[in-house]
Amino acid sequence: MGDMDHALPHPEPDEIRIEAVLQALADPVRLTIVRALAESETGIACGCIELPISKSTRTHHIRTLREAGVVWVRAEGTSRISTLRREDLDKLYPGLLDGVLSARR
Amino acid sequence: MGDMDHALPHPEPDEIRIEAVLQALADPVRLTIVRALAESETGIACGCIELPISKSTRTHHIRTLREAGVVWVRAEGTSRISTLRREDLDKLYPGLLDGVLSARR
Repeated sequence: MGDMDHALPHPEPDEIRIEAVLQALADPVRLTIVRALAESETGIACGCIELPISKSTRTHHIRTLREAGVVWVRAEGTSRISTLRREDLDKLYPGLLDGVLSARR
Repeated sequence: MGDMDHALPHPEPDEIRIEAVLQALADPVRLTIVRALAESETGIACGCIELPISKSTRTHHIRTLREAGVVWVRAEGTSRISTLRREDLDKLYPGLLDGVLSARR
C-alpha cells in the first residue's frame, strides 16, 4: 500500500483486533458499505454508495470501519476513497470476510 | 438435532441474521465461550468455562449467543449445556467461524 495516503490513521495488521472487526461488521449500514467495497477493486468514494443516511452518519460509519482495520481511506482531491483491507483481513482471519459476504441480504 | 431439548427458543437457520451473529461474537467474553465450545463435541455446562464474571452475566452472554443462533442450549438435570451451532453457521456463512476462531487471542 506504498502509494496510499496515510494521512488518516489506520491500525497496522498486528493492531487489528477481532472484536473490533466483528463489531464494525455487525451493522446493516456498514455491511452494505463493505459489500459495495468488496465489488470494487479501485475503491469507492463513500458518497457514491446508495445509503438512506446523512453524510455525517456515513462519515461516522466509514470511520468505524477504518479504525477497526476493515477499510483503507485515502484522500483524492476533495473526495475520500475507501477500499476493503481484504488482504490483511484474509491473512488475519482466513474465511471471515468471505463468510460474511456470502450471507443472504 | 432431533434429541435436543428445545424448551429454550432457538432461531431456525433461516431466521439467523448475520448482523446478530457478528454482534454476538463481537465481545471478548462471548468469544471465550465460543472458543471453549469449539473445542468440545459434547457441549459444556456454561458454569464450567473459566470466566471472571458473575453467574448472571454468564447467563446473559449465553442467552445472547443462543438468540443469535450461535449456540444450542439444552437442559440436562439442573445444568444447561451449550454447544456451538457449527453446522448451521458453516452452511450459512462458510468460513466465518473458522476465521473468527483463527484469530490470535
